[in-house]
Amino acid sequence: MRLATVATPDGTTRAALRRDEVWLELPAADLSELFALPDWRDLASRAASASNAGKALGEVGELPLLNPLPRPTKVICCGLNFADHITEMGRDLPDFPTLFAKYADTLIGPTDEIHAPAEVDLDWEAELAVVVGQPLRRATEEQAREAIAGYTVANDISVRDWQRRTLQWFQGKAWDATTPVGPVVVTPDEVDPEAGLELTCQVNGETLQHGNTRTLVFGAAALLAYTSQFTLLRRGDLVLTGTPGGVGMGMTPPRFLRDGDVVRTEIEGIGFLDNTIRLTSLDPIRP
Amino acid sequence: MRLATVATPDGTTRAALRRDEVWLELPAADLSELFALPDWRDLASRAASASNAGKALGEVGELPLLNPLPRPTKVICCGLNFADHITEMGRDLPDFPTLFAKYADTLIGPTDEIHAPAEVDLDWEAELAVVVGQPLRRATEEQAREAIAGYTVANDISVRDWQRRTLQWFQGKAWDATTPVGPVVVTPDEVDPEAGLELTCQVNGETLQHGNTRTLVFGAAALLAYTSQFTLLRRGDLVLTGTPGGVGMGMTPPRFLRDGDVVRTEIEGIGFLDNTIRLTSLDPIRP
Repeated sequence: MRLATVATPDGTTRAALRRDEVWLELPAADLSELFALPDWRDLASRAASASNAGKALGEVGELPLLNPLPRPTKVICCGLNFADHITEMGRDLPDFPTLFAKYADTLIGPTDEIHAPAEVDLDWEAELAVVVGQPLRRATEEQAREAIAGYTVANDISVRDWQRRTLQWFQGKAWDATTPVGPVVVTPDEVDPEAGLELTCQVNGETLQHGNTRTLVFGAAALLAYTSQFTLLRRGDLVLTGTPGGVGMGMTPPRFLRDGDVVRTEIEGIGFLDNTIRLTSLDPIRP
Repeated sequence: MRLATVATPDGTTRAALRRDEVWLELPAADLSELFALPDWRDLASRAASASNAGKALGEVGELPLLNPLPRPTKVICCGLNFADHITEMGRDLPDFPTLFAKYADTLIGPTDEIHAPAEVDLDWEAELAVVVGQPLRRATEEQAREAIAGYTVANDISVRDWQRRTLQWFQGKAWDATTPVGPVVVTPDEVDPEAGLELTCQVNGETLQHGNTRTLVFGAAALLAYTSQFTLLRRGDLVLTGTPGGVGMGMTPPRFLRDGDVVRTEIEGIGFLDNTIRLTSLDPIRP
């Protein structure tokens, strides 16, 4: 199934399910609300069935797609997780995932603009995001795999100069409205990151990042299981799985995003995000 | 004013205000709900006035005090922030605060037990916590100071072995139900951390940490203003301001909390937390 949060012509939002070239209505305002329902899988399956189909909201390509998950309680990110990037940097593969947190305020939709002050060093990080479909606490990897609602595309846009100010990355990763997510959540029966999905990031049409999810050191289920050892993951929470090589910070000289740049983040079998950078003269107030 | 979330004899919770030796009722189930109201200051002032006093809920010392703030949207912590501890370690004072995030699931009340697997290295970190009283985004330090609802006590209990597994501290800091907070939120007219409040942590009656909030490198208002440059702070959000020297990890040999240990975290003019450690045989499931 391909699930989305769509903008309807009457100015509201709806959770929707794609069948052929049509978005069908689901009984929730968005996917955060849908996934909060314990029987969301049944509701979606029912809406997808020919005999019991949900109301058609509009044609695919006509209805704007929004941030699918506006209200996760947790957005947990993994760094340093692409084996090919780690080995090309001459490092050993890690024994444990490097985790850090974001808040839901960071998230925006698949075609939203990204606003930041002109003075900061804004960089791209294409990532596969995993959506939690059942509550997980102290789960095994098998339990975690069963609990995956689906996969979506994210770009962990990072403010590198702030990220590097201290040992902890949080202040470079938690800028409000800088992490695009979407365009759809695809259920695990349709895509399998462990089998391999191509992941790319283009800036103004130039491919700068390229990786395959089969080379993730810690796969989706492993990350969910590990995180669930110390904290509860709820339905609709997001785990971002890390970015491959090719970020601007790693270039010589470093390259950062400029006003008007268009960042396209794409994962095979899921879709792409298209976000335009808008740098403003509104610099952060100095402490 | 001294504000709290109390357990009432009928099994519910209430936001409450202390007058003399009595807790007076406020129009909210807890302080998260109270601070969500834009006019919370007026409501509390009215309940405190002799002519218009809120209903008496019970005597101070009789009503159990709970986690005052069960639902902050953000709990942001500052590390490496006590000047005396930093200079005693031979380091330079930092130019920027080291920030990391927790989720609300970490928080517990002032007398709750702290449960953790016996195999982890559990350590103490007594901290002053600041409660946000008005929304802050791109605020100056002066605006941030005006927006402080009050101060409370916290202990950023840390799982050191997990914290040290990777460069990012999050996985040692975000264990559910390990961060006691309370017992009360005291408004800025009654306590002034910049003027200096003694802060101590005792384990089984032995004082192991001792600091004074006047030596914070980044004070409460500075931390709120800085954080607000990249993310919105809402009413009821918490910022933990860092811990002084004397944590178990820094001892030779390192000392960690044992089953039955009682951790008392106290700040002059606010109050204390008393939390008993319960180590369980329920070890984390290995990834």
